Amino acid sequence: MQRTSFADMQCPIARSLERVGEWWSILILRDAFRGLRRFDEFRTSLGVAPNMLTRRLNALVEAGLLRRELYCAHPPRHEYRLTERGKDFRPILLALLAWGNRHFSPEGPSVVLVDIDSGAPIDPVLVDRNTGRPLEPGSYTTIPGPAAKSPAGARPGRTKERLRRPSAGARRERERRHERGQMR
Amino acid sequence: MQRTSFADMQCPIARSLERVGEWWSILILRDAFRGLRRFDEFRTSLGVAPNMLTRRLNALVEAGLLRRELYCAHPPRHEYRLTERGKDFRPILLALLAWGNRHFSPEGPSVVLVDIDSGAPIDPVLVDRNTGRPLEPGSYTTIPGPAAKSPAGARPGRTKERLRRPSAGARRERERRHERGQMR
Repeated sequence: MQRTSFADMQCPIARSLERVGEWWSILILRDAFRGLRRFDEFRTSLGVAPNMLTRRLNALVEAGLLRRELYCAHPPRHEYRLTERGKDFRPILLALLAWGNRHFSPEGPSVVLVDIDSGAPIDPVLVDRNTGRPLEPGSYTTIPGPAAKSPAGARPGRTKERLRRPSAGARRERERRHERGQMR
Repeated sequence: MQRTSFADMQCPIARSLERVGEWWSILILRDAFRGLRRFDEFRTSLGVAPNMLTRRLNALVEAGLLRRELYCAHPPRHEYRLTERGKDFRPILLALLAWGNRHFSPEGPSVVLVDIDSGAPIDPVLVDRNTGRPLEPGSYTTIPGPAAKSPAGARPGRTKERLRRPSAGARRERERRHERGQMR
């Protein structure tokens, strides 16, 4: 249920979800990476109602992740191709795939990522392109960027501690609120 | 609108979305990584209706991403902590953050990932943990895993070509369907 727009939120995660924060959209992108392009291909793959599919495809085109391309003039027929922005969604899908395999495949994985040359299984990990350092707890932090204008989602200075747990001040404030009966 | 359950789908992406394929859930996880733990903290951060927040928190607990922990016995008060499964969601959030910064921050990023030691900006990239090779088009493919039992989402053998575009056979079938007027 997407009753709220997150477009005004500054957080880049919220803004991303504004465009794809819905099952069907992400599964459509998954299928687009698998080579599907046409309405009926998506419909068959997903088993989704046509009106829902139309809405999601249009939203993905509007958000610039897919583009419609005429492949037949008479009668006019379109197919949907990933844009550069859509292709950039690849790491998120791969991370979801790895997470799903790890946590929701009690019977073993049904889809395995392998190296195209060696065929060896791939264990995807996020690293810093510049240093090769894995992005693990304690190796990175977030700071406000040039466009930050409110404290929502980012605070000045090193926020690592805050990423882990609220500051002592926040905890004290919480205790005070708790004493006033505002916490649940 | 989550009217369909994807739990029966074999695809690990679909199974992951079953658990978190909804804006609020992902933003709750984002906030949990930022150190938020209590109902009112999430409510204040997200501006979400309490009944919706309750539903999403319960769903995340049920899916094993958060656990409820008593922090006050009289009156009973709970907070929500990331489980190991929840913590494993980190790469997906970071990939969403990077994608959002790249594509939906026309005014410049509001949140920047930096190395905790050097303070240098981080450019997250997904690599194979074993080889360090970036997961870019043409470097990997997917194959059916031990639990694969249907052609949905995976086909035997190297599927790289299929990931890129349908096979010649599929294209011919498409042409036939198109001639019968089934394509749109």
